[in-house]
This record gives sequence, C-alpha cells and structure tokens, in this order.
Amino acid sequence: MADPQIGIYGLGTMGAALALNMADNGIEIAVSNRSAGPIAEFMTRAEPFAHHVTALDTLEALIDALPTPRLLLAMIPSTAPMDAFLEQVIPLLAEGDTVIDAGNADFHATRARSAKLAEHGLHFVGLGVSGGEDGARHGPSMMFGGSEESWTGLQPILSKIAAQFEGAPCADRMGPDGAGHFVKTVHNGIEYADMQMIAEVYDLLRHGAGLLPSEIGAQFARWNDGPLESYLFEITGKVLSYDDPLGKGPMVDAILDRAGQKGTGRWTAIEAVKLGQSATMIEGAVAARAWSAEKALREVAGAALGADRAGVTPDVEELEAALLAARILEYSQGFRILAAASEEYDWQLDFARIAEIWRAGCIIRARLLDDISAAFREGAPEGQLFLAPRFAPVLERGIPALRRLVSEAIAAGYPLPVLSSALAFWDTLRQPRGTAALIQAQRDFFGRHGFDRVDGKDAHHGPWWG
Amino acid sequence: MADPQIGIYGLGTMGAALALNMADNGIEIAVSNRSAGPIAEFMTRAEPFAHHVTALDTLEALIDALPTPRLLLAMIPSTAPMDAFLEQVIPLLAEGDTVIDAGNADFHATRARSAKLAEHGLHFVGLGVSGGEDGARHGPSMMFGGSEESWTGLQPILSKIAAQFEGAPCADRMGPDGAGHFVKTVHNGIEYADMQMIAEVYDLLRHGAGLLPSEIGAQFARWNDGPLESYLFEITGKVLSYDDPLGKGPMVDAILDRAGQKGTGRWTAIEAVKLGQSATMIEGAVAARAWSAEKALREVAGAALGADRAGVTPDVEELEAALLAARILEYSQGFRILAAASEEYDWQLDFARIAEIWRAGCIIRARLLDDISAAFREGAPEGQLFLAPRFAPVLERGIPALRRLVSEAIAAGYPLPVLSSALAFWDTLRQPRGTAALIQAQRDFFGRHGFDRVDGKDAHHGPWWG
Repeated sequence: MADPQIGIYGLGTMGAALALNMADNGIEIAVSNRSAGPIAEFMTRAEPFAHHVTALDTLEALIDALPTPRLLLAMIPSTAPMDAFLEQVIPLLAEGDTVIDAGNADFHATRARSAKLAEHGLHFVGLGVSGGEDGARHGPSMMFGGSEESWTGLQPILSKIAAQFEGAPCADRMGPDGAGHFVKTVHNGIEYADMQMIAEVYDLLRHGAGLLPSEIGAQFARWNDGPLESYLFEITGKVLSYDDPLGKGPMVDAILDRAGQKGTGRWTAIEAVKLGQSATMIEGAVAARAWSAEKALREVAGAALGADRAGVTPDVEELEAALLAARILEYSQGFRILAAASEEYDWQLDFARIAEIWRAGCIIRARLLDDISAAFREGAPEGQLFLAPRFAPVLERGIPALRRLVSEAIAAGYPLPVLSSALAFWDTLRQPRGTAALIQAQRDFFGRHGFDRVDGKDAHHGPWWG
Repeated sequence: MADPQIGIYGLGTMGAALALNMADNGIEIAVSNRSAGPIAEFMTRAEPFAHHVTALDTLEALIDALPTPRLLLAMIPSTAPMDAFLEQVIPLLAEGDTVIDAGNADFHATRARSAKLAEHGLHFVGLGVSGGEDGARHGPSMMFGGSEESWTGLQPILSKIAAQFEGAPCADRMGPDGAGHFVKTVHNGIEYADMQMIAEVYDLLRHGAGLLPSEIGAQFARWNDGPLESYLFEITGKVLSYDDPLGKGPMVDAILDRAGQKGTGRWTAIEAVKLGQSATMIEGAVAARAWSAEKALREVAGAALGADRAGVTPDVEELEAALLAARILEYSQGFRILAAASEEYDWQLDFARIAEIWRAGCIIRARLLDDISAAFREGAPEGQLFLAPRFAPVLERGIPALRRLVSEAIAAGYPLPVLSSALAFWDTLRQPRGTAALIQAQRDFFGRHGFDRVDGKDAHHGPWWG
C-alpha cells in the first residue's frame, strides 16, 4: 500500500465527505477520529475505495503514518477545539508540516493560528469549502489561504476533488493566511443577500400577485433557463414544487418562518463596516434573518399594527431585469469588501480567479460569474463591477425595472431590505455631489470637527464659529 | 484651600472644558498634563475660578494632591495611551481609588480595564460624555458606567456640571463597567441615523423641490417649533442659513461632500449585529458616510451612469409626519440594541432613565425623548418603543406619509439609505408570517440544516431528502 498523501482527522459530516471524495478520486488517505464510532462508520461507507484508505485509532498514529512534510486536515470546530487541537499536535509535528482547517473559520483566528504555527516552523492553511455536504463529497469550490509550500503539496489533491468547470478545477490559492477563509466568508455573505432577494420576490409573487408556491417555483425554474441561471434559483424552483408529505399544502407553508444563521453572514457585514465598505445588501439580509427569529414579537406587532398589504402584479420580464441588476449590485458589494481586505492585508487577491472558482461547486454558482470574471479581466473602471462596460446594457434596462419594483412594493407595504438597499447604494454612488456637506456642517457646528472646502481654500470651519 | 475633590489629567479640548465646568461650579479640582504648555494655557482660562484650581507639574504630584479614595479623571485617548496610562498609575494609587475615562471608548476595552483595575482593588469608570466641547464646558449629558462606590464619589460632581433638564441633572449611573460607554456609543449611532435622515430630506427639498438652502433651513427651524424639536433640527436650520464668507453662495455649497466618521457609528452597527439586533437605520447612515468618502468613484460613476433625478414636491406636513415616524423607528432600533446588551452583559439598564438624561446636553436631545421616557415607564409591549400606545396615533399618520415619501423618492432616483431602511424594518416586523420559511427550505435543501414546522411535528427535513 502506498504512503498516504494526506491525513484527515475528524470524520463528522464534512470531514467524512471530503475524505470519501479523496478516496473516490484515488488519493491515498489516512483517517482518524477522536472517538472510534465514526471511524468504523466511515470505513463502511469507504468500502468501495478501501484500498486507498488507512484507518488509525489515534491522532498520534495518524501523524506517524504520514510521510513528511505532512498534510493534516483537521475537520473540527474552528473555535476553541481547533486551538486545543493545535496545542496537542504542535509537539507531534515536524518542521515543514501543514495543518489544514477546512471549516468556516473567522479569518482573524486563521491569521493568528498561522502566525502561531509559523513560530514552530509549521504551516497553517485556512481552506474555505463551499457546496455543503454534497459538494464536499462530489466536488466543492475551494478557497485556499496559506503558504506557497502548503499549496504545492495540497494543489494536486484539491484539483482532483474540486468541482470542475469546463474541465478546470474550482480550487485555487487566494493568498496567505486568512485569505481563503475570508473569501469564503464573503461568498457566504453574497449567498445571504441572494437568498433574501429571492425571498423578497417570492413574497411579492405570493401575496402581491396571489400566485401559488408551485407557480412561483415554476417561474424560478423558467428564470433559471436564462441569465439568472444559478444554483439558488434552481433549488428555489425545486423546493417550491414540493407538497408537505405530512399535510396537504405546499411544503414551504409547513415550515416555521424563523431563519437560522451561523457566523459568516454577520462576519461579512461586520468586516465590511470595519473596512469602510458597508455592504448594505448583505446587512439587509442579515437583518431579515435576525428579525425572522423574533416570531413572538412579529405576532404581537402584526395584531397591533395590522399586517395588511396591497396587491402588486409585477411583470415577469421586468422582474427578471430587476433581479439581474440587483444581483450585479450584490456581487459588486461583495467584491468591494474583497478589494478592501486585499489592500488592508496585502493579499493581492485575483478577483477574476475568485469569480471563476465560484462557477461550480459552491452555493452562489451562477451564470453571471462568467461575465464577472470577464469584467475583471477586461478591467472594470475604478475596480467596480457595476461600472464594467459589459454590464452597462443590463443595468440600463435593469435599474429602471428595479426602481419601479421597489417603489411599487414599498407603496404596497412589502419589506425589501435587500432590494431597497441595492437602490440606495446605486443612487448614492452615481451622485458626484452628495449630501455629506450638510453632515460636515453639522459636525463642525456641534463638535468643531472641521471640513474641507470644494475650492480647496485653507478654511476649515464655518462662519458660525465667528 | 480645601482639598481637591477630583483630579483631571489631560487638558486638551474636552479635558479643559470639563475642568473649567467643574471649577466654574465651585468644585475644588487639581489638574495636570503630560506637557507644561496646556497647564499654563488652562490656568489663564481658569483665572475667574482660580481659587478652586490647583495646578500640578506631574502626574505623581497630581495623585499626591488628591485625598483618598481618589477620583482621577484621565482625558487621554481611550486606546493604547489609556492602557499605558493605567500601567503607569496603578502602582501610584491606593485601594479604593477610581480612574475615570471620559472619552469615546470601545466598551469592550472599558470592560477589560475595569477587570484589570479590580485585580488591584481599584475602580475604573467609563463615562460617556455627550455635547461636544460646548456641552462639556456648560453642561453635558453624562452616562456613567462603573461601581456603586465610584458613583457615590462622583455623583455630586457630575450632578453639578451636567446639563439640567427642568432642574434635574442629565447624568446617571447606567450600570457597571462598560455600560456607560456602551450607552454613549448607541447615542452616537442614533445621532448618525438622525443626521443622515436630515440629509436625505435636505436632498429631496433641495433637488426634488428646488428650494434654496436658506429656505430649507427656515423649514427646519419651523419644524423645530413642533414635535420634531431637537438640537439637530435646530442646528440644521442655523447652518443652512449661513452664506460662505469666502464666496458668494450658501455655506453648505462650499463644503466638500465627504463626511468624516470616528468609531462610534461603526461600533454601534457592529455591536448590534453581534447582538442579533441589526440596526439597519444606523447601518444605512454609516454606509452613507463611507460612500461619501468615495468622492472620486462617485465622479466617475456619475459621468458613466448619469446623475439625473426627477422632481418631487413633498408636502411639508406630510414630511413632518414622516420624519416623526422615522425618528420613532430610529430610537426603537437604538433601544433594541440597548436591551440586547443589557441582557447579554446583565446591566439592567433603565431605558426610561436613559431617555431622560438624553433630554438635555447631548446631541440627540429632542422633544420626543419625553414621550420615549414616558412610553417606557408606561410599559411598551414586548419592550418595543414602536408598539407603545402613546406612539400609535403618531405612527398611524406618519407611516403612510413615510411610505408615500420613500416610494416617490425612490421612483425619482434619490438615495434614502436611512428612510427606506425604516420601512423595511417596520414592514418586516408587522408580518406575523414572514418569508423565512423559504430560506429555511433552501438551507435544508443545500446543507441539510433542518427546520422547525409550524405544526410542531417532529420532522425537520424536507421531502427532497426522501
């Protein structure tokens, strides 16, 4: 039996899926887990590829079984357990070895862990993996953050197990330390905004136009044959087509309207603000999930304030144009965060490549990403997607449609935290002269903060100061 | 000469203003500064009250001059310099002494410093001070966070120098450790939202209705005679009335439209998200300031996309109703953050009292705060201001007005990050049944995240899983 190329520690849902994917692709792996049960369970599932798998009882044995420089993938929670794990393995590893965290980690933690392991001559990789369990098993999109050395060792493995888009693997090195986890975080932020945008349109079609969930699902399926083609539209079409097997209505009506969220959407919103790049569409989506959790409050408020809404009958083609424009703005905001972080942390992110590796395997895969990648390669003015020449005709048609949609829906009483934020973003950035002069005047009046003048004259306080 | 009651170290703008306020109110103070210049300058300004002031050359001498338990107010940057200062003074102080940070500190830092000083038997107070230099000199609003012992010592001083509202001082103990700085942070977040709301209306009146700045200023002055009465409306009326002494147009037109921001608006947005209380109106205001700084981008975008807007002629009485509703929602979001933090950190904040001490001295002082305080005392349903019975008639009139305003302004091409966020918040929370069921269905489909059912049945995955 050949030496294992990589060790996987932690055989939970995602660890097992990645390990099966590797063995299925002919990669020699060694596996272990803190407790024995999951190892046995894994070996049963890995039976067809058992000749590529070495199972070991302990972490020590796993590490011993790996040739140096080692590649050790730890699929354990990226919080305190990861730090405890690192404490445990540092003395067991040899200079040049790499530890890989393929969970959804806070990139600040990944940066700290990279620095810590570097002190011991070790490499730490933050590997963003998108695509859920199914993606991990059959081909995820993977965003690597770590050293060139670790990438050299890991690239052959990741290229084999990654989703393939027209023959090219959706895995690449984003940059050092936290770059991979950061790109994955922003990926999830965009995912939040796209899902909420879909929910807002669903609301309008359901309660404004009076369509059934199955009819709305069919509409999403039709849109998915056009420029809005994307995994999230595809699955929206599917989930809305199901009836509740335990009841007699549509499945979606049987589900409680409280959305869960883990950390990544919030992290994206927070990091954007820290970087001076408010991603308001993602903020709107995070808010919508938070408010959805306040079910009891909404019941009281609805009774007190009235939940009435008027009818709206959006035109399907107008809606398509509006959604495409909103999606371009959503990605624009996402890439603005990436650009700011790239500068802040000197990552030199390659935006066109990021768009490319998001084209398959991940949750936000979408036809639009081809254009986004091309737009970056062609050079978008000021680095802004929404100014890319190839999007100009789409936006020229889509923005007025979005404007009519949002204006009508707000008049009729529908909440559009994401779609209305898209327009506020657009309408702010297209004004060479904004309203901040008034804010500067106020700040100078009450706090003597000072301002600059449009004519550049060296006078920084208003006449109110005498 | 009597013993000094308090020592002030750091005689910059705010430190000097607070010290002058104290001496002017007959409080015996001792002062010092790292360098000698500001001490001499201060003593010149303090000449009328010199019999209440002891100036000392060094920090050591300042500390020696204070009777124990000492009150030592340090007016130095609340970042690394504060930590360096604490390192320096800890060995010089005696058990039971209090160090006070009256700057705009991150409350997490204040909590950490409180814990650190407690290890040495010392007290640390985070004192939020609002009102700018003028407020500090003549009566600020003050939000104290710290121990009961420190409050006992400091209360007589703060009560004398604070702004007075109908004879009661606008200073109170919010809670322990970071409570005071946190309340001040949220105060500033509300301030951001209110300023941006004003800027949005200014934009509509200026470019939609074609009014001159002086005419808009006069309108704000008129509104300031009614239910919208507030310091920010008052000064908006004033600043818009000025002409540029160096040019020939309105002063506001001579000011560059790039708004500055320090940390507190961003902190509010970030902490709200961390607490699951997205404050979207504050997020919108933070975004607007960030986008205002992207002047070069806006010039390119305006040329490429067109900066055209249609006319809008909002009715003045409708606008008043809309703004009042938006302000209620703005405060609602602010108090929701306070409620979440109070629970998270076990501060037991008294919301009615907070509203009361904001009625004078601070930037967001407004007539509405009387009603807010009363609403909390009467008990707002679910603790939500926007459900308080006393606001029902105001909102019943104001929300439809806000809805018409936002709908028309968006159709006409104006950015309304704060006012449109207000409606998204309102229209989400008044729906007992929201759209998150679709999001839960999607999450279960792609990530097997599971969901709860409306009927409570123990089935947590959709039929798509077989």
